This record gives sequence, C-alpha cells and structure tokens, in this order.
Amino acid sequence: MINFTVGPVQSSDAVRAVGAEQVPYFRTAEFSKLMLENERLVKKFAHTTEDSRVVFMTCSGSGGMETAIMNCLTKQDKALVINGGSFGERFVELLTLHEIPFSEIKLEHGKALKPEHLDPYEGKGYTAFLLQKHETSTGVHFDIKLVSDFCKRNNCFLIVDTISTFLADPFDMADLDAGVMITGSQKALACPPGIAVIALAPSALKRIENNKCRCQYLDLKLALKNQERGQTPWTPAVGVLRQINVRLKEIDTAGGDKYEIERTAHLAQYFRDKLKEHNLPFEIISESLSNAVTPLHPKTQSAFEIFLKIKDEYGMWICPNGGDMKDTVFRVGHIGYLSEADYDKLIEAFLDLRKKGFI
Amino acid sequence: MINFTVGPVQSSDAVRAVGAEQVPYFRTAEFSKLMLENERLVKKFAHTTEDSRVVFMTCSGSGGMETAIMNCLTKQDKALVINGGSFGERFVELLTLHEIPFSEIKLEHGKALKPEHLDPYEGKGYTAFLLQKHETSTGVHFDIKLVSDFCKRNNCFLIVDTISTFLADPFDMADLDAGVMITGSQKALACPPGIAVIALAPSALKRIENNKCRCQYLDLKLALKNQERGQTPWTPAVGVLRQINVRLKEIDTAGGDKYEIERTAHLAQYFRDKLKEHNLPFEIISESLSNAVTPLHPKTQSAFEIFLKIKDEYGMWICPNGGDMKDTVFRVGHIGYLSEADYDKLIEAFLDLRKKGFI
Repeated sequence: MINFTVGPVQSSDAVRAVGAEQVPYFRTAEFSKLMLENERLVKKFAHTTEDSRVVFMTCSGSGGMETAIMNCLTKQDKALVINGGSFGERFVELLTLHEIPFSEIKLEHGKALKPEHLDPYEGKGYTAFLLQKHETSTGVHFDIKLVSDFCKRNNCFLIVDTISTFLADPFDMADLDAGVMITGSQKALACPPGIAVIALAPSALKRIENNKCRCQYLDLKLALKNQERGQTPWTPAVGVLRQINVRLKEIDTAGGDKYEIERTAHLAQYFRDKLKEHNLPFEIISESLSNAVTPLHPKTQSAFEIFLKIKDEYGMWICPNGGDMKDTVFRVGHIGYLSEADYDKLIEAFLDLRKKGFI
Repeated sequence: MINFTVGPVQSSDAVRAVGAEQVPYFRTAEFSKLMLENERLVKKFAHTTEDSRVVFMTCSGSGGMETAIMNCLTKQDKALVINGGSFGERFVELLTLHEIPFSEIKLEHGKALKPEHLDPYEGKGYTAFLLQKHETSTGVHFDIKLVSDFCKRNNCFLIVDTISTFLADPFDMADLDAGVMITGSQKALACPPGIAVIALAPSALKRIENNKCRCQYLDLKLALKNQERGQTPWTPAVGVLRQINVRLKEIDTAGGDKYEIERTAHLAQYFRDKLKEHNLPFEIISESLSNAVTPLHPKTQSAFEIFLKIKDEYGMWICPNGGDMKDTVFRVGHIGYLSEADYDKLIEAFLDLRKKGFI
C-alpha cells in the first residue's frame, strides 16, 4: 500500500528499523539524553526563542490541543478562534467545555483568512487567539502573519495548531511571537502516532505556572518539571519517542526544516502539475494551499467512492473526508516518506479510473 | 540488553515485526475489524460479562486511572481507596484533584490487605472502591476476593487497576463484579507503551452515561461511541494497537490467559528458587507476591547502585524504585518475552557481584 493520507504517513527505513527493536527501559540517563536532544531539535526547527521549552505528551494532536487550552487559558480570558473546518470546530468544542469565553470567526470551507475577518475584533480586549495554521480537513493554509500581527497589536496570547503543517510549511515561532505550537508524531514528523509535541514560549510557561490544570495526565507543570531532566511523569510512548529522535536527526543532517519544507513543496507541486497536465476532473477547493496536502473536489464521482476504489483496487490510500464533506472532498497528502514515483502511480490510477468511466 | 523491568517489557518476534511495518491509514473497515477483535479478546481474557465493553485509550496506565475516575465517579460518591505504594498514592492524588470524597486505607509498604483493614468501613455508606490489584511499586498482590466481597456487601462500585497483573495473575471481572479494569500495553501485554486498555462492566457504562467528563480527550462516552464501530474519536497509537492484536491472538492460540498466567508463574518461581538456592543477600519485601514481579531489598548494597551496575556492566535492566525506596528496593519482573535462560544470566551476574564483594 502507498499512503497519501495526512497521517499516519509513511516512515523512513531508519524510523521503521527502530520500530522493530525492543523498547528499552526509560528511567535511565540514556533515555533522558535522547529526550533532551528531541527538545533541542524541535526548538531548532520551530525557530523558538532560546528560553522556550518543548514537551512530548503521549496523546493525539487533539489531546495536545486540549492540553494547551487546559493549561494556558482560564475563565478570565477572552479568546478569538478561527473555525474553518473540523479542527477549528474542535477548538470551539474545547473552549466551550472548559468554559473559556470566546468569539468565533467562522469561515466557509476552503476560504482563506483576510484582514476584514479580523477588523471587527480589533481593540476589543481579546486576550488569546487560537487557530489551525493549516486547517487539515479543508487544506486551507491560513495567513499566520496576519494573525500574529493582530496578536501583537492586541496583546493576545497566540496558540497555533501546526499539527499538519510543521516541517511542511515555514514556521518561525519566535518571529510570530506565538505562545504555543502543537504538532503530532504522525504528520510531517513521519513517525507512528502516539505523541503530541508542544512547544512553549516564556509567555506560555508563565501562564502554566499561574494556572491549575484540572487533569493530572495533561498537566504541563508536571510535564515541564520532568522534561527538565529529559523524563516524563507517566510512562510515555517510548518507542515513538525513539523514532522521533532518529527522524529529527535525519532531518537535521539533511539540512534542517528548510530542507524538509522544500522537499515537501516540491512533491506537492509535482502532483498539482500532473493533475493539471492530465486535466483530471478534480477541483482544488482551497484558496490558500499548504505544502502538506492537496484538497480535491471530484466533479464526476463521490469522493468516498474514489477513496474505496483506490484502496481496494489500486493498493493506495488517499485521504477521505468525514461528515458533510464525505462525498465531496478527498485529499492527497505530501508529507511522509513519498517520492515522485509514488505520485506517478497515483496519477496512473486516476487515469485508469477515467478510462473506465468511473470518474 | 535483557529487560527484567515491569515495563516496557520485551516483546515477541511477531510483535516486533509489526513494529517494523508502515503504520496503515486507520479510518478503514480493516482497522475497525482489528479493533473489534481486540475488544473481544480482552473481554475473553478478563472474563467480563457479555454486555461489558472495552476501550483503548492512547495514554499511559496512569492516564487510564484518571480516565476511570473522571468518567465513573462524581462528587456525590464516597470512595474508599487502598494506598499501599506509589500507585495507591496516585489514586489518592487523583481523587483529591477531582474532588471525589474519599477515605484512604494506608498500608505499610510490603504489607498485605487483611479483613481487619476493611472492618471499620463496613456499612458506612461507601459507594466506590479503588485499588491496585497489584501495587507495582512494592510488588504486593492484594486480596481482590476480600475487596470484591466487601463491595458486594456494601454495594460499592469497584475500580481495579490491574495494570501490571493482567495476564500475570488470575482475574475474573464478572465473578468479582468489578465495574472497571485498567491495564496498559507495556505490561504483560508485552507491547510498546502508549495504550491504556479499559474494560467496563454495565455498571460502569451506566455511570459514564449519567456523568459529564470534564476532559474531551479522556471522555469515555466518545470512546465507547466510536468503539461501537471499532474506531476512536482521535488518532490513536495505531501501531501499538496492531501489535496488541498480534499479541492477543498469540496468547489465544497458546491457550489464553490461563496459559500466559501459568507461564509467568513458572518464570517467577524459577527465579525465586534460584535466589534461595544461592542464598543471595536479597530479602523479598512483599507479604503477598504477584507472578509479575519479585520485589527485593538488598541487605548489603544500595538498590539503585545494583541497578546501575547490572545495566552498565552486565547489559541487563532490573527495575529500580523511586522516591524513598530508591536505595532500599529493586524489582525483578517476570512479564514479557523472557525465558529461564535469561534468569540464569541474571543470577550469574548477581553471583559475580557477590564474588567481587559488591553485594
């Protein structure tokens, strides 16, 4: 099977080789060293300030989103959140559950964020801003510079979900003055799922220090305290953390985040060019594309039927959408261990489906 | 390295082979089928009632403990908890954090639970009971029959942490009328860490239905709803779940939980006999042993120094203790992919340390 979804994605041979090893005991100096190296490399690739911190939580990316909210926001905040798809909707659900006062900027699926969307909220006392830098469900890459500038002007604490865009599109946490960056092990980090990675600027560390987290398992005070010595309060997904280590060093050796972003951008462009070249009956639905994924509306067949066909008859996974986008949108990912040759096979499958009159 | 800790433990070749594979996309009928098979086999080995359910949460065992408390208990409960070591202490912390009224039966490290410990709480209106069936930190295997009988007489909802004892010692959830059983992927399930397995009796399902969980990520209503079709609300540790599937089927083919428990009991007895045979300067500190681990107090050297020596000079991990037991207790585990020959090597190392005057 070739995997073009947006996670779990394909891992490199070196990462898979670690998966075959016995998982070592981890309350050791050896594992602590590895964890501190993981922290150092994530800080480097996220371009954090020197006094920022990184923790690794054994949970999904959504668990990471909730962790950020539970630890960094309080009922005294007044938050602004971009809701442009399933993951924006999840932020809304979480803010509601945790009783954080908020306003929601609801964007039509596929639409970009524009200055006029933010204008009404200028100078209105908002204290926090949450968004997906890349709304994975619709493939819209929001203008983070626009949001960052708003936050700087309005003194807003910025929480950025970069789950599917970290290492796929440029991100400079220090320059954007973001408080929190969240990503997951199974996106462009291209490791098995199980770990959420959370980078925390000093502004976040201060909020965490002054807050009481109502969930021990997701308590960042405990995670930060343990990570000082490269440890975790609870048994983490040790295997995945070792794979993350191999992967981060692989990227570092190849040229860092810049290299990985360029590689991903190249694959995305290669696929998009082929789509156009063959005039396939798919419409790109996003006004602002990330390198991570191409979201497509098939004009002649149900998106979910195409997903099933490609899986069952061609041995490849494209990424289906859920909910009300199930029949109208599928996505083709560009993160993970993929090559031009893989896309050639996918394009061939699409051409074959057209020849057969399926699309 | 040979791993005698109590988790992560050593995995079988078949489980490791899955670790080397690419992690597949999981929103598929194929993965759903695997998850439903996992549920069926855990129910079988835990001897649940037919109408019980099992969910798989991407978190540590401690995350599973907190999940049980957040979803099944409320401020209207009056809980009784056994605190006989680090994990009993964790239950106490969690009940405190979540403001569940409780009384604590504090047992000296190493001491068994006896009827007289429970007598004062008889007929006092307790509604819930929490305990470690096996307090992993001290290696004390509590008398679960005693607790179960108390719960039946007093109409108490029983939450059992079987994290390190599931598949190592007998457990019959239906017979004990337990409401919740919690275990983890990295104990006798002998897979990498990352998944907490939670079995829920109908009494638990009813409590969950009537409760509002204050954490979306750990919300069992969502987990149960998704598991109806073999799915999870958030991206789970797909790789570990596939390894659990291979492992559960391995156990099933070999003869089920009975076989695995006997195998573990045999290894534990083999090691304990050898200790005695060679008159090693270690004292077993538990009044009531589990098959999962042998907790030892070294009479002639710091436990932590022995751990380091065995790791650095003999290439084996025994299990160190933390906190105030750091220098006085180490543990030797019997769960995971271990053989008599492995124990022969450990005994040889101990004999060598004695010859050198280190112990």
